[in-house]
Amino acid sequence: MRLSREAVEALDREDPLAPFRERFALPEGVVYLDGNSLGALPRITAAAVAGVVTEQWGGDLIRSWNSHDWIRLPQRVAAGIATIVGAAPHEVAVCDSTSVNLFKLLSAALELRPGRRVILSERGNFPTDLYVAQGLARLLKGRIELRLVDGPEEIAAALDDSVAVLMLTHVDYRTGRMHDMAGLTAAAHAAGALALWDLAHSAGAVPLDLAGCSADLAVGCGYKYLNGGPGAPAFLFVAERHQEVARQPLAGWMGHARPFAFDWHYEPAPGIDRFLAGTPPILSLAALAKGVALMAEADMAALRRKSLAMGELLIALFEERLAGHGFELASPREAERRGSQVSLAHEHGYPVMQALIARSVIGDFRAPDLLRFGFAPLYNRHMDVWRAVETLEAVMREESWKDPRFAERAAVT
Amino acid sequence: MRLSREAVEALDREDPLAPFRERFALPEGVVYLDGNSLGALPRITAAAVAGVVTEQWGGDLIRSWNSHDWIRLPQRVAAGIATIVGAAPHEVAVCDSTSVNLFKLLSAALELRPGRRVILSERGNFPTDLYVAQGLARLLKGRIELRLVDGPEEIAAALDDSVAVLMLTHVDYRTGRMHDMAGLTAAAHAAGALALWDLAHSAGAVPLDLAGCSADLAVGCGYKYLNGGPGAPAFLFVAERHQEVARQPLAGWMGHARPFAFDWHYEPAPGIDRFLAGTPPILSLAALAKGVALMAEADMAALRRKSLAMGELLIALFEERLAGHGFELASPREAERRGSQVSLAHEHGYPVMQALIARSVIGDFRAPDLLRFGFAPLYNRHMDVWRAVETLEAVMREESWKDPRFAERAAVT
Repeated sequence: MRLSREAVEALDREDPLAPFRERFALPEGVVYLDGNSLGALPRITAAAVAGVVTEQWGGDLIRSWNSHDWIRLPQRVAAGIATIVGAAPHEVAVCDSTSVNLFKLLSAALELRPGRRVILSERGNFPTDLYVAQGLARLLKGRIELRLVDGPEEIAAALDDSVAVLMLTHVDYRTGRMHDMAGLTAAAHAAGALALWDLAHSAGAVPLDLAGCSADLAVGCGYKYLNGGPGAPAFLFVAERHQEVARQPLAGWMGHARPFAFDWHYEPAPGIDRFLAGTPPILSLAALAKGVALMAEADMAALRRKSLAMGELLIALFEERLAGHGFELASPREAERRGSQVSLAHEHGYPVMQALIARSVIGDFRAPDLLRFGFAPLYNRHMDVWRAVETLEAVMREESWKDPRFAERAAVT
Repeated sequence: MRLSREAVEALDREDPLAPFRERFALPEGVVYLDGNSLGALPRITAAAVAGVVTEQWGGDLIRSWNSHDWIRLPQRVAAGIATIVGAAPHEVAVCDSTSVNLFKLLSAALELRPGRRVILSERGNFPTDLYVAQGLARLLKGRIELRLVDGPEEIAAALDDSVAVLMLTHVDYRTGRMHDMAGLTAAAHAAGALALWDLAHSAGAVPLDLAGCSADLAVGCGYKYLNGGPGAPAFLFVAERHQEVARQPLAGWMGHARPFAFDWHYEPAPGIDRFLAGTPPILSLAALAKGVALMAEADMAALRRKSLAMGELLIALFEERLAGHGFELASPREAERRGSQVSLAHEHGYPVMQALIARSVIGDFRAPDLLRFGFAPLYNRHMDVWRAVETLEAVMREESWKDPRFAERAAVT
């Protein structure tokens, strides 16, 4: 039986998360399925940022570090993120970019596992994660090495006693495939290694329980499912049991035990604060604070149910409507193995996605051939999925993607 | 002859930079002499940031990376900073914090001078700079060492053939003492070392000519004299002649030759872009763009003349009015050896500064005993100096600083 539009509309009427949509400023007529790349703008954020600019910076000037507690803003945002990722507030720090934080944690991992020289990862890990490991290995001139395997099934065999840390991205940015965090963390531990998780496509997208999985280290992104704004500060997690020994090399004053004593000698702050480096970008951080607070209000189990329902709906509609147009499902077919996205592979993926965007259905493209559709259950509706597939079908049927302007690559794909 | 209020008012009437003041949103009745710590808010910035939040992020969402050219925003801001520091646009990158950028450049310096193991600096350098060097040395386990001297007169003797890089802060954060950039850079070069300058208290404060001094490397701050907003992104400079060989270890995707190819192997971008790491905080960067553009409009020679006139005025008024109250001039007496601040030492510096701030004259305090007064000639008036000294005199005469509430240390001093 064909899925009917009425049935999909009914799903939206019955959606317990539906009221959240009104709390985002979404452009009229746009179907936005790219929250996995840049989350939407929470309505409250514009006024909050304006207040920080005009009243706090403009009016109170330098005094705002105390009067508006800018100095503890990173810790306040971290407490919100901690609830979302299943950690204690004092295990999370908000700072820098994901790349920079990964550099800190890989350095810390090597220090926590002296004598072990291997960073183990997958060849298909998010490229920046591999770049950061390569950058560290190059700096350390052969003291460490990056070992890559082709997939999760090879990890167990590669986990020997030279491995200091298993570094994986929980949800794959291309396919949405989700790793078994508890199982792989246990495998790392059994080999005496640490587990470091990149939560870029997980935090705010799927339920997380870092504590329950006994994860050691993690990094994550503020501008995707946490709706923190473009280039929002990132976060990192260090399990409490490692904090006393773990050190990181980006020794800036915000990570000092007494930043305002202006001692010449570095002494790391006790606890998670030693993972801070320089002065945080307060405007961007203030925006992130609002995105995180909004996400922290949501029931992650309800969010997961809706996310999976949207994924199943997209796949069902895809199978029903897009057969014969050259697409292949690039995401795992089993819902529980996916994060909050569904990807389709197509030989002409780039122009097809551009044609879709030209009709106000926004997903994105990832080389070499993937169309990605991300689900942000706080603001996406089931009808967004309906419209996406309906529009994609029209693009293919009318062959509008063959318009030469859709073949031109933009600076950012 | 006593300096008269009328004479000072006349200086403001004749000030060619006076029209700039109207372009800042300064609170009524406040004398702000702390632009060396956090610059004031340019009026244009509030609307610009609001536009980025509401129209760009909210309205165009992910498309803004292309449609609003977010992807080249760091390079556009860098071009503005280049004109302020005397460099070519392709020698400056805007990214991360000063601390993180310093880590990159110290790593690059060691690579540019293989076989040399010493980072030479002053014990009185800005503490974070020393912390970052210590963090790098700790990570590299004895491959490098931080060598400290007590003052500039000891630098020449310490510059032996083990020194890879001379790392100095151009203008001292406590006293405002300004180093001879050309002379010390030449001394470093004569010993085969590189010169790395921290411009935190120089960029936008004093005329700079990195190219003319043949400086090799530099870092600087966006939130002080460049008026970029709290925690604004920082910048770095790498002379063109070093860019082909220089590498840095924070290998994020923004520094890759082809960030959107998603290759697993890191290949540094040609030129200065290889010094970028992760995704930049766009909201904070958009604010910095406005501060930099405004500063780039000013004639740096006129700015220096006014800055020195304000410093001379403060010292003259200090000598005339504050004798017998226990202050000492902590800045160099010769104008050309100072940056854009004057510092006074006082045994009870902390409560004295709090009492001053309570009367709306905002400078700041630095341990152990310094009251700092920074001059930002784009928005400060000569009358600000008059009012600062007049108020300080009243605080001392009335002993209002003895109020116990002024002794309580805030989180941020």
